Amino acid sequence: MNALEKSVISTVKKARQASGVLAQLSTQKKNEALKAMAKALVARRAFLIRENQKDVSSVEKSGLSKALIDRLVLNEKRIQAMAKGLREAARLKNPVGEVLSDIVRPNGLRIQKVRCPIGVIGIIYESRPNVTSDCAGLCLKSGNAAILKGGKESFHSNRAILQILQRALKQCGVDANALAMIESTDREAVKILLKQKDDVDLIIPRGGEALIRFVAENSLIPVVKHYKGVCHTYVSDSADLKMAEEICINAKVQRPGVCNAMETMLVHQKIAEKFLPKIAKALTDKGVELRGDERTRKVLKNIKKATESDWSEEYLDLILSMKVVNSTEEAIDHINRYGTKHSDAIVTRNQKEAEAFLNRVDSASVYVNASTRFTDGYEFGLGAEIGVSTDKIHARGPMGLEELTTYKYKVYGKGQIRT
Amino acid sequence: MNALEKSVISTVKKARQASGVLAQLSTQKKNEALKAMAKALVARRAFLIRENQKDVSSVEKSGLSKALIDRLVLNEKRIQAMAKGLREAARLKNPVGEVLSDIVRPNGLRIQKVRCPIGVIGIIYESRPNVTSDCAGLCLKSGNAAILKGGKESFHSNRAILQILQRALKQCGVDANALAMIESTDREAVKILLKQKDDVDLIIPRGGEALIRFVAENSLIPVVKHYKGVCHTYVSDSADLKMAEEICINAKVQRPGVCNAMETMLVHQKIAEKFLPKIAKALTDKGVELRGDERTRKVLKNIKKATESDWSEEYLDLILSMKVVNSTEEAIDHINRYGTKHSDAIVTRNQKEAEAFLNRVDSASVYVNASTRFTDGYEFGLGAEIGVSTDKIHARGPMGLEELTTYKYKVYGKGQIRT
Repeated sequence: MNALEKSVISTVKKARQASGVLAQLSTQKKNEALKAMAKALVARRAFLIRENQKDVSSVEKSGLSKALIDRLVLNEKRIQAMAKGLREAARLKNPVGEVLSDIVRPNGLRIQKVRCPIGVIGIIYESRPNVTSDCAGLCLKSGNAAILKGGKESFHSNRAILQILQRALKQCGVDANALAMIESTDREAVKILLKQKDDVDLIIPRGGEALIRFVAENSLIPVVKHYKGVCHTYVSDSADLKMAEEICINAKVQRPGVCNAMETMLVHQKIAEKFLPKIAKALTDKGVELRGDERTRKVLKNIKKATESDWSEEYLDLILSMKVVNSTEEAIDHINRYGTKHSDAIVTRNQKEAEAFLNRVDSASVYVNASTRFTDGYEFGLGAEIGVSTDKIHARGPMGLEELTTYKYKVYGKGQIRT
Repeated sequence: MNALEKSVISTVKKARQASGVLAQLSTQKKNEALKAMAKALVARRAFLIRENQKDVSSVEKSGLSKALIDRLVLNEKRIQAMAKGLREAARLKNPVGEVLSDIVRPNGLRIQKVRCPIGVIGIIYESRPNVTSDCAGLCLKSGNAAILKGGKESFHSNRAILQILQRALKQCGVDANALAMIESTDREAVKILLKQKDDVDLIIPRGGEALIRFVAENSLIPVVKHYKGVCHTYVSDSADLKMAEEICINAKVQRPGVCNAMETMLVHQKIAEKFLPKIAKALTDKGVELRGDERTRKVLKNIKKATESDWSEEYLDLILSMKVVNSTEEAIDHINRYGTKHSDAIVTRNQKEAEAFLNRVDSASVYVNASTRFTDGYEFGLGAEIGVSTDKIHARGPMGLEELTTYKYKVYGKGQIRT
């Protein structure tokens, strides 16, 4: 075993040890720790900003884009936001201990299904340092030990945040190993972490498609993930076209760089000639580049051609692919073929058509007459979000505290044996 | 792409296509199909037994153990049992469509969380041919397309069962591609199947540790699995010793070859001298080989020594390892260290001790005063079982129809956009 393996394995083993204690912590103790963590971040903001500056200046030298550098920066406002996130986690309901079912079998065995923490959760993420404190807070509130592995660009920031949070935990009498960090910036460290299936129960990767793919391909630990969001809005021939226009503009333009933004618009052929020129003008006025299939381009003669690869593209930018379809069936089939099971919407006044769309589109969140931009833990009332899942296993869509738990069966007998 | 890849991918794509229709089938239609499948198995039993004979004779030549050959045999009684399983699946409640939550957000968005099928489930298993029909029934009832890959020993039997079930489906007007089989006996076929992450949503491996490990290491698709069951019974110093004796004998002897049988017994030091001789006699009378730690062997001088590797061993046989512990704490720590998160029990009259054990033992099913042998879908009231999970993700413990489902969010708006 080399030094890197030793170091990762030692971190993981200590986290597993701490997770046993963490799972039994009272709500009060957890909330106390979360508030102490929030307070400590604010109190030590000068240190944080100083450490962050090391990351920012080395990234500036590497010539990364302004947008990427901006993601990395910690300032007074962002530190306050991190602290606020921790205080909000303290206010959320503790999911641990909820009795999900409680039955007595004919032989007298009482079987309780009880919600409990998953145990040890590994979170592998990219540049934003606030992920460190957000994930730490949600894991603590759900009773899970967290092993954090951030990107190398934010190494000093992440380490500084973690040091502050660990010290706060310790001062509250909580085992600081419950919040661990893989300090190596070597990708090999991630590979080693992903093999520790006996001591890590779940991996949540957060970042670009390449990172997620790397994690999914190398992990022996269950992974809950989300590759990308190719979200659709289908404007039916029964749509209120004014409403359709507002929804499509919002889904595309309000924040194009996120996973729940619309990437493809489907339009029923009956309304194509009427709707397309209007929406095209509105979107191009907002700087959106349009790419259409052949039938769209019969109406909008000057737009670029959409190629086969456009239908699978997550632009994360002011670009939209557009297609005219013959029927709701065709729209559903297109979405199920090219979509990513994330968020898809129909605009229609026809209830029966709406239900068919909701039932048949195989995505985590399916909308009628609303913008796909609402797919989010806060908007869904979960209170917070550790990520979005496009898998169908364990959790689907926005993941909040409940999605960070599992259950166990507690079986109460009076000497029952099996015959 | 070679011929094998083409064949596997074509099967998988057809199953994905069929899963969309299957997810929308009414309860009545599914039950009708299940009953037709049951009837067809019985009607074509002569064909089934003939095909099964091909498997049995080729395995007999290969010199496999009698027990393994017996697992493979299909006779009138076993075919009736398979049919009964399908009729029972028809009687179980249809889990699809259940509304898990239904809220209205302050902005008026109505968000329904609705239970739905997972989609396409791959099941990879070993010799018993009844698994083919059991899994087909449970997948159909839960609205999932199934891709079955049985062991090569039971190839002709599995293919015959599948042909009969597919024909019955077709006669009921259900797309027979919803029930598919990977016909190649080449292990490469499994590897190819495990890469089809866009068209298969979940893999359930059923079989020995080597098979499960192969699947877990090669899959890009989420896997819910169970490596092995190293189950413990801890006899506390507060135990009713007569009850403890009955429970331990049942857990070890009633069916030693299954995953919920006891493999290690832990005994509190205060009662070791009184309890060990009694239980040792009862167990050895039933043919159990005992292996003890040093303190056990101070009381039971003639038994074998348990080595470090014994604590992790799933004997699946009439062998038991035994250890004397100083406290409940030590028992819990031993179980969490060497156990497999399957099923573990305490025998005690002390309620507080029982609760500590239930809370702190990190296993799917934790028992007080009952035999671990009860971990089973039928015994837990799930009606049927497609397997047992020792993972903590998605499903834990016995998996029934609900564990073969996921959920989606249906969001009803009136033109809401995000600001």
